[in-house]
Amino acid sequence: MRPKTPMPERVLILGGGFAGRTAAAALAGHGLDVTLVDQHNYHLFQPLLYQVATGELLGEVIATPLRRLLQRPSTRFRLGEVASIHLAERSVDLANGDSLSYDYLFITLGTQTNFFGNASIARHALDIKGLEAAEAARSHLFQALEHASHCQDAAEQAAWLRFVIAGGGAAGVEFGAALQETLREMLPREYPELPLSRVQVILIHGAEALLPGFASALQQHAARRLQRLGVELRLGTHVKSYDGRLVVCDSGEPIATHTLVWTAGVTAAPMMGDLEVEQGHGGRLLVDAHLRLETHPEVFVAGDLAISRAGSSWPQVAPFALQSARHAAAVLLAQHQRQPLPPPFSYQDPGSMAVLGRLDAVCQIRRWRWHGFSAWLLWLLLHIYRIIGTGNRLRTLLDWSSDYLRRNAAVQLIRGSASPTQAAQNAEPPR
Amino acid sequence: MRPKTPMPERVLILGGGFAGRTAAAALAGHGLDVTLVDQHNYHLFQPLLYQVATGELLGEVIATPLRRLLQRPSTRFRLGEVASIHLAERSVDLANGDSLSYDYLFITLGTQTNFFGNASIARHALDIKGLEAAEAARSHLFQALEHASHCQDAAEQAAWLRFVIAGGGAAGVEFGAALQETLREMLPREYPELPLSRVQVILIHGAEALLPGFASALQQHAARRLQRLGVELRLGTHVKSYDGRLVVCDSGEPIATHTLVWTAGVTAAPMMGDLEVEQGHGGRLLVDAHLRLETHPEVFVAGDLAISRAGSSWPQVAPFALQSARHAAAVLLAQHQRQPLPPPFSYQDPGSMAVLGRLDAVCQIRRWRWHGFSAWLLWLLLHIYRIIGTGNRLRTLLDWSSDYLRRNAAVQLIRGSASPTQAAQNAEPPR
Repeated sequence: MRPKTPMPERVLILGGGFAGRTAAAALAGHGLDVTLVDQHNYHLFQPLLYQVATGELLGEVIATPLRRLLQRPSTRFRLGEVASIHLAERSVDLANGDSLSYDYLFITLGTQTNFFGNASIARHALDIKGLEAAEAARSHLFQALEHASHCQDAAEQAAWLRFVIAGGGAAGVEFGAALQETLREMLPREYPELPLSRVQVILIHGAEALLPGFASALQQHAARRLQRLGVELRLGTHVKSYDGRLVVCDSGEPIATHTLVWTAGVTAAPMMGDLEVEQGHGGRLLVDAHLRLETHPEVFVAGDLAISRAGSSWPQVAPFALQSARHAAAVLLAQHQRQPLPPPFSYQDPGSMAVLGRLDAVCQIRRWRWHGFSAWLLWLLLHIYRIIGTGNRLRTLLDWSSDYLRRNAAVQLIRGSASPTQAAQNAEPPR
Repeated sequence: MRPKTPMPERVLILGGGFAGRTAAAALAGHGLDVTLVDQHNYHLFQPLLYQVATGELLGEVIATPLRRLLQRPSTRFRLGEVASIHLAERSVDLANGDSLSYDYLFITLGTQTNFFGNASIARHALDIKGLEAAEAARSHLFQALEHASHCQDAAEQAAWLRFVIAGGGAAGVEFGAALQETLREMLPREYPELPLSRVQVILIHGAEALLPGFASALQQHAARRLQRLGVELRLGTHVKSYDGRLVVCDSGEPIATHTLVWTAGVTAAPMMGDLEVEQGHGGRLLVDAHLRLETHPEVFVAGDLAISRAGSSWPQVAPFALQSARHAAAVLLAQHQRQPLPPPFSYQDPGSMAVLGRLDAVCQIRRWRWHGFSAWLLWLLLHIYRIIGTGNRLRTLLDWSSDYLRRNAAVQLIRGSASPTQAAQNAEPPR
């Protein structure tokens, strides 16, 4: 049965992150048939993932079901992993073999952790960029404490109590401060057999200053704050290899540890290399001032994957994802309605913040740079406001912020790894 | 360094369920060295697991870190899986090879799902008895809806939308009612492409009446209520096999489905058969009136694993676990302090309840039997009270009870299964 009205044009949005969900919201109700594809059925508020990894925050608080977000006219959700994009045929293949065709495409797939081709690090390091990865990191951290608590060998115990973080950007700094604080407050209460003095958190960073992109005074404040919390800094140092036991760096002694958390970079998925379009730094896709591929004006790229052909500086942060997706959606609607295009996209930087444990943060907005409690309070309010904006519940957030203040909401469940043989046991015939 | 005072006697508690944690609490502070061993680092409030499986409840709400519960004098926690128990040597081997010796032993390991030796059902059916199992069941249920939502083949779509539950005890009945209600309220809002009329929930039960142990009038009320909700009942029917696609029963046509949830029985872990002590129904361990093994008065069994040598009727429910653990702990302390033993254990049945979706439940306490809203309210208050008792936070529970009433806290995150190749992708060198 073919309807008598012409088929609406099909928009396919690949990825339900900040950019993808913003695009879907902007395009709904304009006579387009919008489908959002994601390999997960939830949108993730990534800026707080590091708190899931330390057990401070429940994963569910920052994960919103995409179907709940997409309850809009002519908007559909499709769970699936994107396997390949065929620009010439205007179609996308999913991993299960299904093929989806489009009139307009949004590539908003974001990035993945960059191990810089080091397969050994990729296999042994923890990665906190996705929900499952962050929850697995949490399980590993608490498992390490359990191992340490009954370890007879002193060197082995030290390796379980030594936590190494690679990367001193916002993710590494925020995670390092939160981890050190969590350990300091929880260990005396719950692991009386583990003296706090044996715990060591080491942050390794390639540059001489933490938090690239921040003002020098804030970088120095962050370094001082981390050291005061007890985090050991190794600046100007690169990790060369890790086999699950020994972190080898380009300077200094190798570090014996069972925990390396990798936050040292992101890159486009390898699939982007098959697109036959120009790629910039980190595999990002070069787009014009309207976020379009030059060769395919029906294909938009927004969020972390977009890089300016004209050389504008676009950071891989949530505000850029939102702004770029909104602009691309406006351009698409103008093209669809045969209206004149809006003025070229220009990113309005709302500022940057990084939180340094409880009650401290660094903040730079336009010309202002400051740190301390007021910066932290602003960070807290902004994040609560933003999470509520992503569809989660006010009450959950109020709960969390109060728990965060009182430090008693730690999620410390170890999942999976403790009993690898359980599933096999359950399948055995009972006696 | 050996202390000059004599070594305290060592109590080993195997399992941190209701019985194990109750025993640990009762034994702390009496000059004994108490160690609780569990394969998970959390205590689980099992009666609400079915709500984790339907996505109504966050797993973390009913899982309390054992170390937090065990902050008592001379009480330790040891994460580990029990591999074997050596009664003659008074030692327990863990799966990692460590051996723990004891003066007194508590076997409070509970039971596991009984697939009655059917390896095919064990492999393909969902099991909602543990936290990870219930969360995996939740992922599967929502994954099934996603498959159905883009399935072209009508028979295949029907198989994804047909949910079969084996077992009509409290677990199966409560899960069936909750599942049907969740689907009915969520589908029209979030899966507009899936007509509710195509969803089918079927409950298969071996006996002619649901809820064994309940009064006949309540059994009939439960059956009517489930049918009114839309659950199809197949009573007097047994599942013979399931290969992931077809449920074959001993009567009626085979049922094509991708979802079989198995709640049809529990049994002791196979390991219990190696103990060379007498086992009763379902592999439970025969104990005397003081919950001790006849041949080893230093070994106590409490909770689901205990069965009365004298033939007393002990149900596998939380109140029995609490009472039996308290009694066994009192007997142990009397033996340890060379005091006279308390009077023999006698189980005080506080009554039974089963919840039938929202706002309805069946309840029998002593001679009273009733159902409806007041029974449901009592169920709600009791469970809130009990969870708070297990150490979780008042606020979380208030949140949950209010969400439960308004039906808007559904956790519907699909974990893991959506992207089996993601980990492999991340390990690939980027371009």
